[in-house]
Amino acid sequence: MSHSRTVEIEGHIIDSGTMQRCFGAVMDLGGSFDVEQFDVGTHEEAESYCRMAVSADDSETLQAILHELHQNGAVLDDPTDVDLVAAPADKVVPPDFYSTTNHPTEVLYDDEWIDVERIEMDCALIVEPEGGPRAYTKVLNAVEEGDLVATDESGIRVNPPERPRSGGGAFGFMQGGVSSERPSESTIREVAEELREVTEDGGNVMVVAGPAVIHSGAGDALAKLVEAGYVDSLSAGNGFATHDLERSLYGTSLGMDVETLEHPRKGHKHHIWTISEIIRAGGIEAAVEDGIVTEGVMYQCVRNDVDTVLAGSIRDDGPLPDTVTDAVEAQDAIREQAHDADIVLMLATLLHSVAVGNCLPSTTKTVCVDINPATVTQLLDRGSAQAVGMVTDIGTFVPTLAEFVLEGEEGEVAVGADGGHPQAGDE
Amino acid sequence: MSHSRTVEIEGHIIDSGTMQRCFGAVMDLGGSFDVEQFDVGTHEEAESYCRMAVSADDSETLQAILHELHQNGAVLDDPTDVDLVAAPADKVVPPDFYSTTNHPTEVLYDDEWIDVERIEMDCALIVEPEGGPRAYTKVLNAVEEGDLVATDESGIRVNPPERPRSGGGAFGFMQGGVSSERPSESTIREVAEELREVTEDGGNVMVVAGPAVIHSGAGDALAKLVEAGYVDSLSAGNGFATHDLERSLYGTSLGMDVETLEHPRKGHKHHIWTISEIIRAGGIEAAVEDGIVTEGVMYQCVRNDVDTVLAGSIRDDGPLPDTVTDAVEAQDAIREQAHDADIVLMLATLLHSVAVGNCLPSTTKTVCVDINPATVTQLLDRGSAQAVGMVTDIGTFVPTLAEFVLEGEEGEVAVGADGGHPQAGDE
Amino acid sequence: MSHSRTVEIEGHIIDSGTMQRCFGAVMDLGGSFDVEQFDVGTHEEAESYCRMAVSADDSETLQAILHELHQNGAVLDDPTDVDLVAAPADKVVPPDFYSTTNHPTEVLYDDEWIDVERIEMDCALIVEPEGGPRAYTKVLNAVEEGDLVATDESGIRVNPPERPRSGGGAFGFMQGGVSSERPSESTIREVAEELREVTEDGGNVMVVAGPAVIHSGAGDALAKLVEAGYVDSLSAGNGFATHDLERSLYGTSLGMDVETLEHPRKGHKHHIWTISEIIRAGGIEAAVEDGIVTEGVMYQCVRNDVDTVLAGSIRDDGPLPDTVTDAVEAQDAIREQAHDADIVLMLATLLHSVAVGNCLPSTTKTVCVDINPATVTQLLDRGSAQAVGMVTDIGTFVPTLAEFVLEGEEGEVAVGADGGHPQAGDE
Amino acid sequence: MSHSRTVEIEGHIIDSGTMQRCFGAVMDLGGSFDVEQFDVGTHEEAESYCRMAVSADDSETLQAILHELHQNGAVLDDPTDVDLVAAPADKVVPPDFYSTTNHPTEVLYDDEWIDVERIEMDCALIVEPEGGPRAYTKVLNAVEEGDLVATDESGIRVNPPERPRSGGGAFGFMQGGVSSERPSESTIREVAEELREVTEDGGNVMVVAGPAVIHSGAGDALAKLVEAGYVDSLSAGNGFATHDLERSLYGTSLGMDVETLEHPRKGHKHHIWTISEIIRAGGIEAAVEDGIVTEGVMYQCVRNDVDTVLAGSIRDDGPLPDTVTDAVEAQDAIREQAHDADIVLMLATLLHSVAVGNCLPSTTKTVCVDINPATVTQLLDRGSAQAVGMVTDIGTFVPTLAEFVLEGEEGEVAVGADGGHPQAGDE
Repeated sequence: MSHSRTVEIEGHIIDSGTMQRCFGAVMDLGGSFDVEQFDVGTHEEAESYCRMAVSADDSETLQAILHELHQNGAVLDDPTDVDLVAAPADKVVPPDFYSTTNHPTEVLYDDEWIDVERIEMDCALIVEPEGGPRAYTKVLNAVEEGDLVATDESGIRVNPPERPRSGGGAFGFMQGGVSSERPSESTIREVAEELREVTEDGGNVMVVAGPAVIHSGAGDALAKLVEAGYVDSLSAGNGFATHDLERSLYGTSLGMDVETLEHPRKGHKHHIWTISEIIRAGGIEAAVEDGIVTEGVMYQCVRNDVDTVLAGSIRDDGPLPDTVTDAVEAQDAIREQAHDADIVLMLATLLHSVAVGNCLPSTTKTVCVDINPATVTQLLDRGSAQAVGMVTDIGTFVPTLAEFVLEGEEGEVAVGADGGHPQAGDE
Repeated sequence: MSHSRTVEIEGHIIDSGTMQRCFGAVMDLGGSFDVEQFDVGTHEEAESYCRMAVSADDSETLQAILHELHQNGAVLDDPTDVDLVAAPADKVVPPDFYSTTNHPTEVLYDDEWIDVERIEMDCALIVEPEGGPRAYTKVLNAVEEGDLVATDESGIRVNPPERPRSGGGAFGFMQGGVSSERPSESTIREVAEELREVTEDGGNVMVVAGPAVIHSGAGDALAKLVEAGYVDSLSAGNGFATHDLERSLYGTSLGMDVETLEHPRKGHKHHIWTISEIIRAGGIEAAVEDGIVTEGVMYQCVRNDVDTVLAGSIRDDGPLPDTVTDAVEAQDAIREQAHDADIVLMLATLLHSVAVGNCLPSTTKTVCVDINPATVTQLLDRGSAQAVGMVTDIGTFVPTLAEFVLEGEEGEVAVGADGGHPQAGDE
Repeated sequence: MSHSRTVEIEGHIIDSGTMQRCFGAVMDLGGSFDVEQFDVGTHEEAESYCRMAVSADDSETLQAILHELHQNGAVLDDPTDVDLVAAPADKVVPPDFYSTTNHPTEVLYDDEWIDVERIEMDCALIVEPEGGPRAYTKVLNAVEEGDLVATDESGIRVNPPERPRSGGGAFGFMQGGVSSERPSESTIREVAEELREVTEDGGNVMVVAGPAVIHSGAGDALAKLVEAGYVDSLSAGNGFATHDLERSLYGTSLGMDVETLEHPRKGHKHHIWTISEIIRAGGIEAAVEDGIVTEGVMYQCVRNDVDTVLAGSIRDDGPLPDTVTDAVEAQDAIREQAHDADIVLMLATLLHSVAVGNCLPSTTKTVCVDINPATVTQLLDRGSAQAVGMVTDIGTFVPTLAEFVLEGEEGEVAVGADGGHPQAGDE
Repeated sequence: MSHSRTVEIEGHIIDSGTMQRCFGAVMDLGGSFDVEQFDVGTHEEAESYCRMAVSADDSETLQAILHELHQNGAVLDDPTDVDLVAAPADKVVPPDFYSTTNHPTEVLYDDEWIDVERIEMDCALIVEPEGGPRAYTKVLNAVEEGDLVATDESGIRVNPPERPRSGGGAFGFMQGGVSSERPSESTIREVAEELREVTEDGGNVMVVAGPAVIHSGAGDALAKLVEAGYVDSLSAGNGFATHDLERSLYGTSLGMDVETLEHPRKGHKHHIWTISEIIRAGGIEAAVEDGIVTEGVMYQCVRNDVDTVLAGSIRDDGPLPDTVTDAVEAQDAIREQAHDADIVLMLATLLHSVAVGNCLPSTTKTVCVDINPATVTQLLDRGSAQAVGMVTDIGTFVPTLAEFVLEGEEGEVAVGADGGHPQAGDE
């Protein structure tokens, strides 16, 4: 890597998370670091000091890395005076104006570090040279023509808050985590790629699904993923299976109901009737074999030998004969599925997702999708080391995921692949 | 209408909402009614009585209507004994088993109305003839072979709870509103059709949009709707416009950022810089004319003469010179837009949607979309008579809506239409 | 009732809910009505007409009733010209100014009904007599000195939107329900009174509780309610009981943890250890008898013979030997509790509340409290006729409720009551 | 500190956050560390190594610290074989059983580190000595009498997942943050203490309040805090002030309405009328001086010279003459308040809280309270270094806070303090 600069960082930089963020930034942005000196404070009051060279393949990447390090308090080891450019007009800033953080900040002017007054984020930083130089922030619409505006980051030092040495009582120490709001589609695309990779590598994909998957009309898309071999195990409840079976049992006429939903209570009668019919047939597999059930997620699971666990709950109707009503027995079955999984998709179910999450090693990748932010947060807190959380409508997530997974497949085929995808020959 | 039956309803049926639901059910399901007698209780303790003939074009529809009326307490005027069929096996019910409501219920057996014991919804209704006949509910898995199970609805009378004569204190009177969870896609399709109809009829479509529309990547889809002539006015804030302009100003490179979002704070600098550039150009329209802004929602609004109001707020950066910073002045401008609108789409913004909603007559159709259920509920409470609320991800809603609106348009053209759609020839 | 006026209402007033709201308003406000004429439209296109006399004990109540009827489209049978008063200053309205609704409106001026222009809610209504009289709305800050402002409601006719004759597609017909945001404390006070009444009448109080009741520190308050005899049955899960028992088992040291929560994972070890100890003792009742468990909700339930059902779930640790792990068996036990209850408190648990709600007749009063609005909405939709929903923190709700219930009790005693409250003598 | 042990930690321990958590745990728990050796990996692939002595005043604290370090992968520098104790009965574990994490784990048995199979959290760890020793987890109800269960933490090594060396795509690296659900009351107590301390030290308390504070009935409590001198500046909107003034203007009769809320629309007329009256008086201060407004938050703010900013918004009625309708002007006024504040209470308002948060340095303490978790999360993400977030009902938070603040005051006085509290003499 041909582009390199050396930076210094000091303070309580380990326990405040500063070094973690700095090392992370270098790696995330594709750079490399070489620690030249690292003096770790030997006790809690002692500060630490780190000097490291940071490198990147191109100057643009290096700039991006230095920007992140700067925001975390790093300074170039050979700082020069702040670069000042006069504002070209009222409310207009020069091209490379420095945009402030909300942390205490200093500027190097005439070889002296001056404190910046009126700290506030996303402002311009103005230096007033006359009368003992002063530096302060200005919001955009207060900038006046001729104001000396700081540009670039050289000569500017940020001091992010450090972890209090003694506990802060109710006040938690915030690390200013960057919560990037990612565009939905690109995230779903990445999940689709991961799903394809795991499957191609012979790995195990576990799906945990709630009844909202069927209610929202996403059942067909999930059935397609099962049919195409992207699901190895399914963990769900009596409600999920019954809703799915009901759609199959009532064929196209039920299709109309999904559009119009005129008779919700009549619908509930269908629900009970579906369970009664499956009981009469002797279970889901028998109902598939007898040709009673001819489509849907459960149908595809039977046809594709997907390891399925339906766990009972106190709010179940019926239940179906396939439902494991004993909580301990169901938990044991779920445990086996969870231990075998390489990636778990948790789709719109808090109860089943928590049950699965309780059994997962922290090394299993998890994807959690729910319309309720609290559900997503709760599941991500469970401790997977690599996790994706999405707050979105399951009725659009699953179809979009299926489209991306399956179009990737076709794309590959189109390019001339031999259809090496598992089960691709079946369909 | 050739199929017809006569029913009777009695009790406090007006103030308990029973008649409203009964008349509504007939009309919703495409039937017709003929009130033969209606005695309205003349004071608050007096009960009312209604006898009406209900008709439908086919017996299936008539059955559906009678089912709804039955659930609301209506009884055929010539009730016959309950139909009983023996359960064919344990946990299996006969085909047309009657599924209970949770309201007090009676069955007509041997010409006498007997109270049903153990009222609970979604159960089978069992009649035990011996020893002074008894009737009670059983959940599916308690049903035993040979149990006499009620089928159909004849000979069964439901008594929905009536409004308490005196106020219930903290306890509100619930009317058991049927909250149908509709599949997302079919609802979006109906909104798309409405949008096309209003536009084809020369009506006015108002869009109220929050910054999440842009953050979630839905800006392109909204820009397409504007370009295709489906938006007559846009009501938004400084943040929405700035995010949209930023995407345009930073061209394809910004496109990459939307994918990766590596530098969120750098992103914020872009935000301030965008405002600074628009100020330098003299406003959004000037920036479009100068070729600085070349795509996006604001670009299309300028190009298609969309009536745009950007209202300021205390959390704005900048603001843009186009932003109306005075709340009273902004409110007046929004009021003009609202009074002209025939349909309003409220997209992921509580603040602007409430401001618009305050000015709307109750006759304007409204569509409100937000990921937060509380926002949707609050907006629907404002009092439009015809409203759609969807709790979903704006990042998938707008693209799906645009797809349905625009595909409908092509479909029409394909059928040989003359391209009468406004502006269809422009692009 | 000495004060009386006669009003007329016409249109699709039954299926649009107008009559329901009008009758309801009279009763809610303590008035009385006497229907003089009611012509019900005999088919769906025919309009209905109602003329009724409304009475109240005092003129203030009568005014309040007439105001509500007016808002729903009723007109006095002897309407007089609108009362106009000149605005005393810019932006200042006369005392009894008429505040508009958002519905189409007419004013009677010179014996003619004129349409009001620019309909918008919460505005003043201005009449301009010159040049063929006009009427329109003005927001407060547009009112100018001398504007003729309508006062009172006489001579003003509101036309609320009517239910569309044919289905509105995706667009639901909104009835403009008045969602009163009630001050929290007064609602809790009413629930407390209801609880006391039910208990004093020998009724049955059922509590459904989630683990958040204990986590949030509300366990002590619930234990006090049990101890004082206000709880007849408890429906909960393994988690609720274990958390409660853990607090008891670890005595004061655990009390400290509840304050500081330094070792959450150590806390979880306590959780497992608690279950292990109860298993060793042979169950909760045995643990109470052996003096192992000496306080808390479960302790009080054992001591006060509260009918307790702990239902298992797939996310349970352990479980405790008292937990019913089979979902069907647990459901049956819950069903018995639900059928016996006169009032049910659902405290911060969706799973158990839905299970209980499924078994409840619509005549049982329910109170549902959760921090998540979606949970509250879902439970209220289940169809109790008399229900209270509160979106609030369970950690403050239960202590406040207990305080109100128990202070009421003391209050009664203080007044000289003989302590007739059940079990009051026990403590 | 007399108790001490030495531990070793190795791996990518800086960028995975391990060292931050370890140093933090020692300090949080009141211990002390002495780093004996710290070799920092000089580039991204190189692992780091840390050996440090940990001390505490008593052995219990030391154990607590070692437990936390252990969970983060630290091992004693002189590890001994795992301690095994036979399970005394089925489903019963020995007292000090080791409760597993969900991270890969090893046990030292016969001087060799063996991998633990079937990793899952909150389980017992069983060692099977025969046949080449094996170790695996068992959930509580699978434990059998005689199983050799690991106790304590010696001889057990946990390997928390490390940050992937290359970016994980959509999958974020989770640090297993401990989200302690704190009992509500103890947190409010800590905030109350902080408020008292800041005020006693002559610091500046800023309150940002939304209209829900008044709607929920918490206005009286806030007024008491203002009266007692605990509020230096108030940042709110037109709606907040109007609701508060309306309560004062309508005196006790309005008090009744807050209880019953019978006439919500009549209530809205009061709202407009209140604004009209304040306009007539010439503003809030004038209305207080004229004796028109005699109680409430705004009254106390005028009487106690609280620096008040009412910012306008496009959804305002009126507005009041005191409302700053220009967004830029309002923002500047808010900025001055924010820069002066030492602690900020954000009460049930997203709009105003974001506006204030945008201007705050990261060193200002913030307390954010809202019923909506998304609001709290969004505000805490803004980057205060010391922040408290509470998802709770504002209607119970403010009265409880006021009670704790004011009872603390009396308590102090009771103890014999000289009443040095500002303004304490006034009341």
